[in-house]
Amino acid sequence: MPEKTPSSLLVISAHAGDFVWRAGGAIALESARGARPTVVCLTYGERGESAKAWREGRQLDEVKKIRRDEAERAAGILGADIRFLDAGDYPLVESVELIDDLVRIYREVCPSVVLTHTLTDPYNGDHPAAARMALQARILAQAVGYDAPGEALGAPPVFSFEPHQPEMSEFRPEVLLDITPAYDTKVAAMRSLAAQQHMWTYYEDLAQRRGVQLRRNAGPNLGLPHDTRAEAFVRHFPHVTDRLS
Amino acid sequence: MPEKTPSSLLVISAHAGDFVWRAGGAIALESARGARPTVVCLTYGERGESAKAWREGRQLDEVKKIRRDEAERAAGILGADIRFLDAGDYPLVESVELIDDLVRIYREVCPSVVLTHTLTDPYNGDHPAAARMALQARILAQAVGYDAPGEALGAPPVFSFEPHQPEMSEFRPEVLLDITPAYDTKVAAMRSLAAQQHMWTYYEDLAQRRGVQLRRNAGPNLGLPHDTRAEAFVRHFPHVTDRLS
Amino acid sequence: MPEKTPSSLLVISAHAGDFVWRAGGAIALESARGARPTVVCLTYGERGESAKAWREGRQLDEVKKIRRDEAERAAGILGADIRFLDAGDYPLVESVELIDDLVRIYREVCPSVVLTHTLTDPYNGDHPAAARMALQARILAQAVGYDAPGEALGAPPVFSFEPHQPEMSEFRPEVLLDITPAYDTKVAAMRSLAAQQHMWTYYEDLAQRRGVQLRRNAGPNLGLPHDTRAEAFVRHFPHVTDRLS
Amino acid sequence: MPEKTPSSLLVISAHAGDFVWRAGGAIALESARGARPTVVCLTYGERGESAKAWREGRQLDEVKKIRRDEAERAAGILGADIRFLDAGDYPLVESVELIDDLVRIYREVCPSVVLTHTLTDPYNGDHPAAARMALQARILAQAVGYDAPGEALGAPPVFSFEPHQPEMSEFRPEVLLDITPAYDTKVAAMRSLAAQQHMWTYYEDLAQRRGVQLRRNAGPNLGLPHDTRAEAFVRHFPHVTDRLS
Amino acid sequence: MPEKTPSSLLVISAHAGDFVWRAGGAIALESARGARPTVVCLTYGERGESAKAWREGRQLDEVKKIRRDEAERAAGILGADIRFLDAGDYPLVESVELIDDLVRIYREVCPSVVLTHTLTDPYNGDHPAAARMALQARILAQAVGYDAPGEALGAPPVFSFEPHQPEMSEFRPEVLLDITPAYDTKVAAMRSLAAQQHMWTYYEDLAQRRGVQLRRNAGPNLGLPHDTRAEAFVRHFPHVTDRLS
Amino acid sequence: MPEKTPSSLLVISAHAGDFVWRAGGAIALESARGARPTVVCLTYGERGESAKAWREGRQLDEVKKIRRDEAERAAGILGADIRFLDAGDYPLVESVELIDDLVRIYREVCPSVVLTHTLTDPYNGDHPAAARMALQARILAQAVGYDAPGEALGAPPVFSFEPHQPEMSEFRPEVLLDITPAYDTKVAAMRSLAAQQHMWTYYEDLAQRRGVQLRRNAGPNLGLPHDTRAEAFVRHFPHVTDRLS
Repeated sequence: MPEKTPSSLLVISAHAGDFVWRAGGAIALESARGARPTVVCLTYGERGESAKAWREGRQLDEVKKIRRDEAERAAGILGADIRFLDAGDYPLVESVELIDDLVRIYREVCPSVVLTHTLTDPYNGDHPAAARMALQARILAQAVGYDAPGEALGAPPVFSFEPHQPEMSEFRPEVLLDITPAYDTKVAAMRSLAAQQHMWTYYEDLAQRRGVQLRRNAGPNLGLPHDTRAEAFVRHFPHVTDRLS
Repeated sequence: MPEKTPSSLLVISAHAGDFVWRAGGAIALESARGARPTVVCLTYGERGESAKAWREGRQLDEVKKIRRDEAERAAGILGADIRFLDAGDYPLVESVELIDDLVRIYREVCPSVVLTHTLTDPYNGDHPAAARMALQARILAQAVGYDAPGEALGAPPVFSFEPHQPEMSEFRPEVLLDITPAYDTKVAAMRSLAAQQHMWTYYEDLAQRRGVQLRRNAGPNLGLPHDTRAEAFVRHFPHVTDRLS
Repeated sequence: MPEKTPSSLLVISAHAGDFVWRAGGAIALESARGARPTVVCLTYGERGESAKAWREGRQLDEVKKIRRDEAERAAGILGADIRFLDAGDYPLVESVELIDDLVRIYREVCPSVVLTHTLTDPYNGDHPAAARMALQARILAQAVGYDAPGEALGAPPVFSFEPHQPEMSEFRPEVLLDITPAYDTKVAAMRSLAAQQHMWTYYEDLAQRRGVQLRRNAGPNLGLPHDTRAEAFVRHFPHVTDRLS
Repeated sequence: MPEKTPSSLLVISAHAGDFVWRAGGAIALESARGARPTVVCLTYGERGESAKAWREGRQLDEVKKIRRDEAERAAGILGADIRFLDAGDYPLVESVELIDDLVRIYREVCPSVVLTHTLTDPYNGDHPAAARMALQARILAQAVGYDAPGEALGAPPVFSFEPHQPEMSEFRPEVLLDITPAYDTKVAAMRSLAAQQHMWTYYEDLAQRRGVQLRRNAGPNLGLPHDTRAEAFVRHFPHVTDRLS
Repeated sequence: MPEKTPSSLLVISAHAGDFVWRAGGAIALESARGARPTVVCLTYGERGESAKAWREGRQLDEVKKIRRDEAERAAGILGADIRFLDAGDYPLVESVELIDDLVRIYREVCPSVVLTHTLTDPYNGDHPAAARMALQARILAQAVGYDAPGEALGAPPVFSFEPHQPEMSEFRPEVLLDITPAYDTKVAAMRSLAAQQHMWTYYEDLAQRRGVQLRRNAGPNLGLPHDTRAEAFVRHFPHVTDRLS
Repeated sequence: MPEKTPSSLLVISAHAGDFVWRAGGAIALESARGARPTVVCLTYGERGESAKAWREGRQLDEVKKIRRDEAERAAGILGADIRFLDAGDYPLVESVELIDDLVRIYREVCPSVVLTHTLTDPYNGDHPAAARMALQARILAQAVGYDAPGEALGAPPVFSFEPHQPEMSEFRPEVLLDITPAYDTKVAAMRSLAAQQHMWTYYEDLAQRRGVQLRRNAGPNLGLPHDTRAEAFVRHFPHVTDRLS
């Protein structure tokens, strides 16, 4: 069992690749600070996000293996541990058992921050299903009376990372995370997913756009460089702080 | 003209007392850190928030003076500069001139953080009017071409402080500020407003409730004391940060 | 000055005819109970709601007179006092002076209930303008320090009556008022507006539809008759009651 | 089988204690008027809301018994019948069977008013689950063709009682119920839950706050006493009435 | 297996009669243009929408047969194919199996347009359940890796047709479809449902009201006739077009 | 006075450049079809959107002239007439007079389609002010009794074009307009604005992103090319059509 650290990021992802595109910067940033983030993939995205492999005539097990290998490689580059629950995608079906698996991971990892999908995504039903289970498991893990190993959890903040169609998914950026120091690592992780070259460009452009937006909202004195790169998030709970900024 | 400091809080308040009840902790916290916050009262609250004085038969000028003295005393305790624009309340009428006054203050103070009212308050039309002008002036102050002294402003974050009827004013706390170290100062400032004793209790209870809520959202490892006190805020622009928390 | 009564309905209407179609049942119901409702028409609707008269080649003063006479006749049938502020329509422009007129009426009438337009109406800008002024004046009239004759007002409940395009105006019926006992009076008032025959049918159908909806939401035991007629309203403030129903 | 009465309140509660804190005043008010309210607890709250018992090392059955005894005692004080469906909490899982149980209760009790949780509660997934089932069962119970004993139900109004974190649960008070005459009974019921002393204060303060808010929204003539106590509710369906107030 | 046509309308309906009242015009319009729409009834509406048959003492199988016969007759008049999945209503329970049935139909029919219920309907839980499944199945049918016969689907636009209580179901008309040329056919289909005479009037009035609204929103030059009839819809995805109108 | 044509596009823009970036494709598309669109610039954007000129030390009149020349050149490329109301920007102040100017233009141009800004834009107050006036003037122009030359207007559809920060401005694309045939013209118009090179890239990328989104929402049979370019819009009124697509 991994040792608990004060800073521990937990990423709950519906499919094997989601965490790279949408939260790779946040993950690399934390691991560069000495933490060891944990990524949980509820499925391999074997049916819903592996069109290329199916078009090449692969079988289900092959597809899963391809996606698993890719995700492990990318997680390695980002400096994260990765686990696969193999729950089956398209559709990802919510269940008490799967939520229980997540509760156990919460209790084990004791995350200081949780990242997951948005609760709305009209183009992909698995993403909201993952988000609902991530939020439900977090509540359960806080209850002393819930029957799972480990201590009752505190109440870690939860963020939704950016969906592929932000406006259609009611995603209004609430947090712009400066990922500039970790950006090269994110790019390397994205490019390790060799089959999805068209995604590289999209997410590199997005990082730049969110970087411009970050600078535009950064206030008077920050002097941020022109090549600032950012990821956008939405908060699910109030931000606890001792300084307004 | 006050010297610009890297951290400079600007509070734009419709009436003379609002800043004490709703943002006194945030102000005291900043001044305890060595900054000199600026409070701008658009009006004295002479008609809308001075029922006691009118019932005692005071004239308009007297009422204004009472409110001004009180507000100056409270600002002094909180460690803030205070200015009065005497724009007339109930109703506070939006005007190009008043917005221009605010632009000039923005350019002069160059705030790193701005606090103001909510955009919705069905019980008080002056509060949203103040918030609209505060937001409009911030935009204008950022334009190089706007004809006012000083440099074009950066884009400071803006927060709405908590209205008296949060649920009815669509106020969902997004930021819980730990004001515990400054809480005694806030209490002293509130109690210097001798005529409004019933408000003391309300806002002391609120600080406690928001403190409990802060602890409940603070995540696993914080170990916050039981007497934690907090103020709640809503953000108007994305939070720029280099660390999710 | 009319004598204050415990039950006193105040209707604030943008144009001369609005109160008949949209709140005629509520008004007739109150007057049948012995109260004397007050209707305030901010304008005659001389430009925006008098197409027929203009097409007949009338002059402005004639149009106003036609609308005034009609409105007085309808108010008489409904048992209400009526006043005209002649503020000019299309557009109805919000002003401090007009709001002040309303404050004075609030202080004089001391309404137990206020009816006005919705805050949203994409097909008519005068309606939301009237609603905003009605709400603003109500706040001002409550302030002891507001310089107008009479006592500071209590906080009467405010309802928006149904706009012509409910779905497009974000109108979700929150209150269904059974106007069956007063329905014949409302019909008589509507039919006294001889020039607008096409409106009769529309609002008679609407009263029936809202009546069906009322019966469908009336719970298990009410035994309401099939010819129930209703008007729909939206509340602006919490409903104060000593019994849930 | 209890006899149907014209006024019959049905409270559908996720856990054993919820109805006391959140609707105890409404229940006591009805029983003081001679009605016999029915409380249905879907679970005992054995896992999610019994931290103290688990920390003391109790077993599951013991925890359930503790919560059941407490809830029966409190219901007795409030003058209500109580039933336990023992569906298992944390998570409370929606099922056709559990909804069917509720349909049968609806058909038996024939409620004139229904109280339940809110549909949103980011801090507790069981509460929205209970609310969804309460609303679904109400629809089914209205269908002649639904296979359960008793007559097809009318359409009783449904109210959500106040969640623990109103702003975070999108709870905007729509109804403020004056519980002053029943307040002592509610306090007695709360205090019978000896293990949860910290809740007493919170809900006594809340009753006072909602009482102040009630008086502030009560209009001009009501003359309500300073010790007015209230509970807040949200409506799910239009309010059917023959008088605006 | 029906041949795929470039224009192919798919209607996914919770109960046997819904498609006639709410989308009969759209269906008849398409079939008049030479297409062959497909209607899928997830259930017969045997429990929830067959009160009359139950009151007459019919058995479950009889009720189903009555509803099936009626629906087939109406579909015939409208020129549509119809299928029944007999999933059981009140409640209609979402399941992976039922969604899979829909995926297979999507792959077979390859619809150019999809019509279904709204996602909100506080008076009928089966309607949103049908809409959720229709939307979920559409996503799954687009995935190459989903295990069902046929090609991966494109992304057909989806519309919600008008619920019985539009304002309570958050239904704001976004598309007004001119059904005038097909209106007589719709009326004939409605009148073939002999047992539900009260519905005829309601939906004939609605077609007229939506027709008036269509003319009121049709812009300057259209010269639409006074007997224009319309149906209202809401879009789920952006409208793709090469001309703004 | 320009001749009225059946298809006539009216673009109401706060500042001189807005129409190029945000609606240049829609304009060029219409003019390529033989129509002559009309662009109205309420201001030159002389203060708020001319930072470069001010930094170079230009005077107000020079800045206006620069912006006017640029806008005329771009309008020429797009094939549109252009007018300047010179109302003064930052802030653009709403007035009865300016709205009256717009009414007269509506009556003269008799637009079949209107394009303007969004009603929300937290980064620029002039944009919503322009949109509010465009919508208000459209209502007034429809009234026979409004005192301005020309016939009462029909009810042209209104679209908001895409703001610079779509997610922050509550902009959810409802219409994706295929501008591919006119895209080269739009690019030429953008590049004629020589001083704003950084905008070229942003809006070329955006046209591509919206093009991808258009293809992703275009349904099964369209076979759109990979270099599809699009502009996104939001509708203010229901879409009137005789075919769902």
